[in-house]
Amino acid sequence: MDIVIIGGDAAGMSAASRAKRNQPNLNITVLEKTTDVSYSACGMPYNIGDSAREIEDLVVRPASVFIEKQGINLLTGHLVDRIDPENKTVAGTNINGMQFKFNYDKLLIATGASPTIPDLPGVDLPGVMPLKSLEDGRKIKSYLTHHEVRRVVIIGMGYIALEMCEAFRRRGIDVAMVKPRTRFLPWMPEEMATVVKTELEENGVRIHTEQAIEKIEYENGAYHVTCSNMVLEGDMVLVAMGVSPNSQMAEQCGIALGPHRAISVDKFMNTSQKDILAAGDCADAYHIVTGQKVWIPLALLASRAGWAAADTMTGKASEVEGITGTAVFKVLDLQVARTGLSKEEAGAAGFDPASVIIQSRSRAHAHPGNTTIWVDMVGDKKTGRLLGAQMVGREGTAHRINAVAVALQNQMSVSRYSQADLAYAPPFGPVWDPTLTAANQLLKQL
Amino acid sequence: MDIVIIGGDAAGMSAASRAKRNQPNLNITVLEKTTDVSYSACGMPYNIGDSAREIEDLVVRPASVFIEKQGINLLTGHLVDRIDPENKTVAGTNINGMQFKFNYDKLLIATGASPTIPDLPGVDLPGVMPLKSLEDGRKIKSYLTHHEVRRVVIIGMGYIALEMCEAFRRRGIDVAMVKPRTRFLPWMPEEMATVVKTELEENGVRIHTEQAIEKIEYENGAYHVTCSNMVLEGDMVLVAMGVSPNSQMAEQCGIALGPHRAISVDKFMNTSQKDILAAGDCADAYHIVTGQKVWIPLALLASRAGWAAADTMTGKASEVEGITGTAVFKVLDLQVARTGLSKEEAGAAGFDPASVIIQSRSRAHAHPGNTTIWVDMVGDKKTGRLLGAQMVGREGTAHRINAVAVALQNQMSVSRYSQADLAYAPPFGPVWDPTLTAANQLLKQL
Repeated sequence: MDIVIIGGDAAGMSAASRAKRNQPNLNITVLEKTTDVSYSACGMPYNIGDSAREIEDLVVRPASVFIEKQGINLLTGHLVDRIDPENKTVAGTNINGMQFKFNYDKLLIATGASPTIPDLPGVDLPGVMPLKSLEDGRKIKSYLTHHEVRRVVIIGMGYIALEMCEAFRRRGIDVAMVKPRTRFLPWMPEEMATVVKTELEENGVRIHTEQAIEKIEYENGAYHVTCSNMVLEGDMVLVAMGVSPNSQMAEQCGIALGPHRAISVDKFMNTSQKDILAAGDCADAYHIVTGQKVWIPLALLASRAGWAAADTMTGKASEVEGITGTAVFKVLDLQVARTGLSKEEAGAAGFDPASVIIQSRSRAHAHPGNTTIWVDMVGDKKTGRLLGAQMVGREGTAHRINAVAVALQNQMSVSRYSQADLAYAPPFGPVWDPTLTAANQLLKQL
Repeated sequence: MDIVIIGGDAAGMSAASRAKRNQPNLNITVLEKTTDVSYSACGMPYNIGDSAREIEDLVVRPASVFIEKQGINLLTGHLVDRIDPENKTVAGTNINGMQFKFNYDKLLIATGASPTIPDLPGVDLPGVMPLKSLEDGRKIKSYLTHHEVRRVVIIGMGYIALEMCEAFRRRGIDVAMVKPRTRFLPWMPEEMATVVKTELEENGVRIHTEQAIEKIEYENGAYHVTCSNMVLEGDMVLVAMGVSPNSQMAEQCGIALGPHRAISVDKFMNTSQKDILAAGDCADAYHIVTGQKVWIPLALLASRAGWAAADTMTGKASEVEGITGTAVFKVLDLQVARTGLSKEEAGAAGFDPASVIIQSRSRAHAHPGNTTIWVDMVGDKKTGRLLGAQMVGREGTAHRINAVAVALQNQMSVSRYSQADLAYAPPFGPVWDPTLTAANQLLKQL
């Protein structure tokens, strides 16, 4: 059987390795448009923030390992531009300008996502850069090495933007962030979003919301970002306005799309087209709390969906139950974590949500080093079900959110979650875990 | 209605406060034998380790708050010595030698546990001390202040013993630990127990197992602990051989006991005797994984059981689902966590257990500050059910165990747990959470 995989990042390479483990005799071809495979994309902000580290540190497994040790026909620099489901072929052009065409019995589309680039004058200037691929990371790191960058303007305020704030500040670079929308971290209750915003501002980051971005110009040795009623100057501009799924080629061959134009897949990663699967940032997923399709591109799902696709292609069906939208990121000294639905998302999904925001502590009563932990918890008034939680704190929130994620996977009620037997020791938290205190308080609203 | 509570620690005071919130007109009397109520017992080792802190820091709420603000009739220095279920009275003697007797409509026994003191010559010498009550903590701290303590011998190697190792080392005191049994942390797989043991030894703690303790003598200005084939010398001896439930008085009035002679209670905290409840370290609980009764005295259960008892007494029944035996403790720079059953416990409980021990990392690939995390995970070959996990690491295990605890509460299979949507960001772990890697590996054994 011939398996062809388009894309050699998290989902694609997980699938290739797993399929080969499942059936060592398989003929697997991976077509990757760049020259990089299997790297820690999420690690880029931390690497860029540290001038002493090589960007190539982020490569988890070089192409040669896949080719020589695992027997995968991995072709980098191969850009696929069309899929023919009728004749079961994919075709494109490689980095040397040569045309190629491959037949497949099973095809996996793992084309990932691309950074959203606004249609702005000046967005293609050399010092205006997104951060998505390892090549983007190389460019930014090289730019910082070869230019005197003292000020950066970041357009956007999502995960990557916030992580890059820390990276730039660590290198002593001034940061201004700007975006058109009103709310900073709009999915987070304002009280908690303010904690994060304050942390950034206290570390010298200037935050400008409600600023439409009009143009970027290079003048007098600096980039000028013209906004609604201000002009921000920087020696470099980072465009971090989120990502969109790379689904155009799939759409062109008649494959159905889902939310955010991601490729629609079932729990076995099958698309609407026979023998074509999709996995990773280009594909959608089931949200366990709502039962609805969503597109939340995150690394664990990409890897897990890659495995499931491999299993399906090799006749060993294993389904991906779904996601609860669990995520964590670091903003300077804060850990910001979420899982499930915010109160607004819960309302939009048809629940009758109640929520509480509580403040608890990261360590036991009177234990030195104690800091505040904020928990927002959301439940459904109609059914008593736990719907989601968000946490902010200086320690002890990154992994605590996982208990709530597992509760959501099990469709637990707030009442049952409040009975969870969670760990306690004075250096690690109060007797009642902050998420239990939140559940106890939320119960009063249900 | 008259509610009487025997014992003013975690379970007793939680119950008193909650009952009063449920029914503000209630007449609640708490009889506490010591003069301390509501303190962080688990915080004592950390407090003792820090000569700059006052031991009274550990008091969470002074007696006056309960009496004046909450209207609870809290009587300290009142030792109850008999319960008369026939006439519904409790009686005893107070600190001034005065006899007392109280009638009750509902009685809650929250007498806690006492340290196990071996029947050894010399165990009552002044420098030989246990650590359980705040008074014990005061004595140890005062002893360290007023004596030149350069060497301590710790008899026992449980949670308290290990936490006290750190406290003594922090004060520059030499530590030798000794116990009769062979295995260090017997509930932990040997490979992981060795990680903990090595951490202690590398920090100058001498560990002596398989040493029966024969006698303690004070000679030439030092305590001599004579063991099977060695004599250990110290300026002080800590007896930390575990605790036993204070259930004698309950047994004397005909109340049924459960495992470890703890008072047997149902999920509403009722004992076998009408209108008498029990909660906290003196009582047993249901283990969610086995469905069997167990006695695992931990702070969260005490507090939760106190609330449930208050609810039951005030006619607002709320049950305690049970425990999964989740615990965490700190051993110098290590976080040691567990939940559910070890492989041996699972076998003893009638499961057909399989287990894996994996090594994962505390941060993402190539992220600075990365350290090893060990995970032991246990599942049932017959049903595929997840039965327990243990973790050791320098960071990121204390709260991670909670995800597994919630999984156990939901009787998840290893396969379903392997689908959990856990948080990922490079500073906080690998893409596949260490517990997911363990689950993926364990699946191959099931």
